[in-house]
Amino acid sequence: MWSETPDGLSCTYLTTAHRRVAAELLAWMSAAGMTAEIDAVGNVVGRRPGARADAKTVIVGSHYDTVPNAGKYDGRLGILVAMAVAEQLHKSRHALPYHLEIIAFAEEEGVRFAAPYIGSSAVAGRFDQRLLERRDADGFFLRDVMREARLDPDAIPALARRRERLRAYLEVHIEQGPVLLQHDLPLGVVTSIAGNVRYLVALTGTTGHAGTVPMTMRHDAAAAAAEIVLSVERRCAAEPTLVGTVGKLNVPGGAINVIPRRCDLSIDIRADDDATRDAAITDIFADIEAIAGRRGVSVEIKESLRMPAVPCSREIGDHLAAAIERTGQRALRLPSGAGHDAVMFNGLTDIGMLFVRCGNGGISHSPLETVTADDVDIAAHVLLDVLLHLDSDL
Amino acid sequence: MWSETPDGLSCTYLTTAHRRVAAELLAWMSAAGMTAEIDAVGNVVGRRPGARADAKTVIVGSHYDTVPNAGKYDGRLGILVAMAVAEQLHKSRHALPYHLEIIAFAEEEGVRFAAPYIGSSAVAGRFDQRLLERRDADGFFLRDVMREARLDPDAIPALARRRERLRAYLEVHIEQGPVLLQHDLPLGVVTSIAGNVRYLVALTGTTGHAGTVPMTMRHDAAAAAAEIVLSVERRCAAEPTLVGTVGKLNVPGGAINVIPRRCDLSIDIRADDDATRDAAITDIFADIEAIAGRRGVSVEIKESLRMPAVPCSREIGDHLAAAIERTGQRALRLPSGAGHDAVMFNGLTDIGMLFVRCGNGGISHSPLETVTADDVDIAAHVLLDVLLHLDSDL
Repeated sequence: MWSETPDGLSCTYLTTAHRRVAAELLAWMSAAGMTAEIDAVGNVVGRRPGARADAKTVIVGSHYDTVPNAGKYDGRLGILVAMAVAEQLHKSRHALPYHLEIIAFAEEEGVRFAAPYIGSSAVAGRFDQRLLERRDADGFFLRDVMREARLDPDAIPALARRRERLRAYLEVHIEQGPVLLQHDLPLGVVTSIAGNVRYLVALTGTTGHAGTVPMTMRHDAAAAAAEIVLSVERRCAAEPTLVGTVGKLNVPGGAINVIPRRCDLSIDIRADDDATRDAAITDIFADIEAIAGRRGVSVEIKESLRMPAVPCSREIGDHLAAAIERTGQRALRLPSGAGHDAVMFNGLTDIGMLFVRCGNGGISHSPLETVTADDVDIAAHVLLDVLLHLDSDL
Repeated sequence: MWSETPDGLSCTYLTTAHRRVAAELLAWMSAAGMTAEIDAVGNVVGRRPGARADAKTVIVGSHYDTVPNAGKYDGRLGILVAMAVAEQLHKSRHALPYHLEIIAFAEEEGVRFAAPYIGSSAVAGRFDQRLLERRDADGFFLRDVMREARLDPDAIPALARRRERLRAYLEVHIEQGPVLLQHDLPLGVVTSIAGNVRYLVALTGTTGHAGTVPMTMRHDAAAAAAEIVLSVERRCAAEPTLVGTVGKLNVPGGAINVIPRRCDLSIDIRADDDATRDAAITDIFADIEAIAGRRGVSVEIKESLRMPAVPCSREIGDHLAAAIERTGQRALRLPSGAGHDAVMFNGLTDIGMLFVRCGNGGISHSPLETVTADDVDIAAHVLLDVLLHLDSDL
């Protein structure tokens, strides 16, 4: 396993380890009977032509870059399952009514250049040219790093697929959460990729001596923060596809005998549709205002991120569900709380995503991330089944 | 004003600034008609003999050391009021039925050697000899620092006053809180000096991706901490003399998109009697256990301090209240949430404490700490009045 580090798996965009993975994927795709190439942005693209030259294209994609000290399955599982299916199609010489592209995206995690989806954005025609002038932590420009890897940044715009030539985008991915594990199911059908809003909240109250200020005279920033944490939790528990997290919580320079003047916290809210998310935000903001007002604590809120939810195709979801049911399993539908390459294809073509059960309590971005061989086998069956049932939409 | 720093007031034990303050206090005490000396631990002691040689002694004390960047009144106000009263007695040649000692204690705040009450513990016979081997932040031993200041550490035990020779210990102190200000009263009678228990609490839950773990499957350490913060607040608000503070609150290495595995917090609980405090602790601990159990979060609690409450004398309190009422003011009785030199005299003699209204919302340990001249004038009148009414208890 190629990695930038001797222990564990770290494989970020266009490092030596990353380029070796690309070369290996290229060889595997060729061995699976596809014409394969590394494109201008570093994606490894395998093609299997459809029965008719004027057919549309189905893309099955996922990414081969990783976070630092990653799990083995995040991203790569989807590539390997797609290649296994392509090999199966090759062996059975099955003619499909559409062109099939297996794409191993070069970059999704956003680690090296603090920009995610570099690979899939290029294919979707959404690559931001300004990124070429961005530097990594060592000061190297993306443009120079690409040239050093014998990629052609100027050819990226030409990678964009045309909307009218696409039939669907499919992606198999490890769930990165505990839902399938809890339901004792190997696979799940993704309904949408959650939208995400993030805030940084700074609360300012009044400091004081922990012994001399009666409870009724306090303006304690930490107590206000505590109420906000529980407000986020309570409101987000009210709907099944909503999640809210206070991941940062801190009294700067807090002392055991001093009433906190300041408390900082973060809020991350996601839902599988933007209306659900925005309704929660409205309620939580009203709660924050009420809490701050009642306690005489001032509040400053900065929005640090806003990503809309990306719905998956109902039709493709039904295909996936039917294929799962044909394996004898129940087809659970669930949202994806994490982002995926699929979001880049929003509005371009129909999106379908299949989740594979994550072991070890659902742990992700960790060497402890795991799947079972049986579950992967069922996932490959389901993907093949869907590809065999998908019409050409001509 | 002597200070270790060019801006603001910082005067810690046996620095040059501190020794200059002692020399000045010595001169002022002499000018007020007392025989005055600097004792073996650095206290400035002024004596005014009573009418009979075999009389008991009333001590009026407070400290002249300060915290860094201190207010001008914390400690020193009590010394200056006592000296003004002694001067008054001197001018009127009033003979008291007891010996009077005005003691400016050298150390109360515990800043330089991380040990409070160095001055008053010596007078109370409670000085811990092991402190002599303790070093300050620059590596200087307390024993050497004392010798350098021409003090005699070996003579400290002989400073201990004998219980049977003491009539009372009185202390005037700025309130360091907002209670008198809120009640629009210049003075208050302290009922007791609150006991204090401190805990450090470490909560450990389960981390996870902020997007992929449903709310019902979380074991969020920060959410558990939030409930504990509010439990402390709620329980301590239930009784007027109880205060509880979570001054430290932190998710170590918290990230905006990660469910907190760990959250650390501190709890400081005080009440003017130990039974009230301990009942609150019992309830809060039961709450913590219930919160942790319900959330599947483990909890580790370390007690870092336990100081019993020190009751003030009812008899002396009545004298103080009567004297306040003779000035035309209402005599509010209130506990002291902060510790004072008076606690060293617990069990040795009757304790009486008079609080003076603190301005600026009750701010303390800050250059913004303030009192009015009028309030100090009333305090001096009340102290004089009490000294004139106090019998010899022979």
